[in-house]
Amino acid sequence: MPKFKITVEYDGTEFVGWQRQKNGPSIQSSIEDAIKKITSETVNVFGAGRTDSGVHAKGQVAHFELSNKISLDSIRDGINQHLRPLPIAILDAKEVNGDFHARFSAQLRSYEYLIINRRSPLTLYKNQAWGVFKQLNINAMKKVAINFEGKHDFNGFRSIDCQASSSIKTIQSCTVKKNKQYIVINVAAKSFLHSQVRIITGTLVDVGKGKISPTNIKKIIESKDRSKAGTTAPAHGLYLLKVEY
Amino acid sequence: MPKFKITVEYDGTEFVGWQRQKNGPSIQSSIEDAIKKITSETVNVFGAGRTDSGVHAKGQVAHFELSNKISLDSIRDGINQHLRPLPIAILDAKEVNGDFHARFSAQLRSYEYLIINRRSPLTLYKNQAWGVFKQLNINAMKKVAINFEGKHDFNGFRSIDCQASSSIKTIQSCTVKKNKQYIVINVAAKSFLHSQVRIITGTLVDVGKGKISPTNIKKIIESKDRSKAGTTAPAHGLYLLKVEY
Repeated sequence: MPKFKITVEYDGTEFVGWQRQKNGPSIQSSIEDAIKKITSETVNVFGAGRTDSGVHAKGQVAHFELSNKISLDSIRDGINQHLRPLPIAILDAKEVNGDFHARFSAQLRSYEYLIINRRSPLTLYKNQAWGVFKQLNINAMKKVAINFEGKHDFNGFRSIDCQASSSIKTIQSCTVKKNKQYIVINVAAKSFLHSQVRIITGTLVDVGKGKISPTNIKKIIESKDRSKAGTTAPAHGLYLLKVEY
Repeated sequence: MPKFKITVEYDGTEFVGWQRQKNGPSIQSSIEDAIKKITSETVNVFGAGRTDSGVHAKGQVAHFELSNKISLDSIRDGINQHLRPLPIAILDAKEVNGDFHARFSAQLRSYEYLIINRRSPLTLYKNQAWGVFKQLNINAMKKVAINFEGKHDFNGFRSIDCQASSSIKTIQSCTVKKNKQYIVINVAAKSFLHSQVRIITGTLVDVGKGKISPTNIKKIIESKDRSKAGTTAPAHGLYLLKVEY
């Protein structure tokens, strides 16, 4: 059976998340429905990252199998046509080997978090960024970010819903950049715990606000205690940027 | 009477445009209503640029007078509070001299036009960019843009609704930049004709598509004939970026 890898962009605002759920429309089920319309086949679409409700993607990756071969252009354009008017788009389609798995073959996942730091409420990017009103100390945030890099037990940086058996993860890079009112946090790792990027972001923002002292960050990580880390940043500022294999 | 200058950001999607109209909500009337709620005064808010329905602003400027003095922070935060949940925000408020006029004192207006050039439909920036599916020749567009700079009779580059008595305008700069799939066109002038930036953009896109030859641009401008110029780019890719005084 031919196997396909697709790269997907979406605005997660109106969805229950990537994964199929009974309580509303998901990205996964929307794509599966579109594939059924063009191929009459009922497929399972497996995603690299199970983004939560409100989380966006500029480069989610997923795979699925079909019993019949169809052209890559037809896959991309056909799914896109049947996804309309939903804010989900297939950016790219490739054929892959039978052993490729969007989730298990992934080597690096990159997330981006967008903060708009200003006193005025957000307008243009209302559902696509976190509006933080208090002026953040960007230098403190930059200095602290590096502490998240490397191999750590991130038990203090996962949601209570996290089902991973181990909370040890290796973060390849964690950076903070500022351009005028826009602050972008980039975090990359082979895999993440549930809400890990959002809790790291929230902790960095608490450092920027002066609520957490930069000198305490190492101790907070070592404590493995969720109550010591910062707030969980809202879903709508988070983007799954890229998945590498 | 104290006079105030405000800098305004908005998502123009759901509005009839900047200017008060009978057929729906405008940015101007929304701000006037918010000012009335905090001051109990009925004011006229004058904008620097009368953006059309769907056009956005990151730096519209407007002015109004009040009979009583109130603090600048109260103006910004108070109007913002009463604008909620509309996608309009006051970024800044200043007190100005009695002879300041947002429209007539403006020395330079800068507009930005955002194109996303790719085969897939837009998701995240659906109402905030123009999705152009055919691959554009960016070098041809860059080369042609310079022809719009300087003093010209732009009669061929205004909508039939344009009421300006003269169609002679001086464009200070017209540039095209590309970063991956994002193409940004910047146009600055003391003042513009109705739809001028959108027709310049549409013409540049027609050049990028190969529908208009770059060597014909001078002749097209000189013809002063709307039917010779390119298409009118859609409103939702256009942003009023900045107004200088």
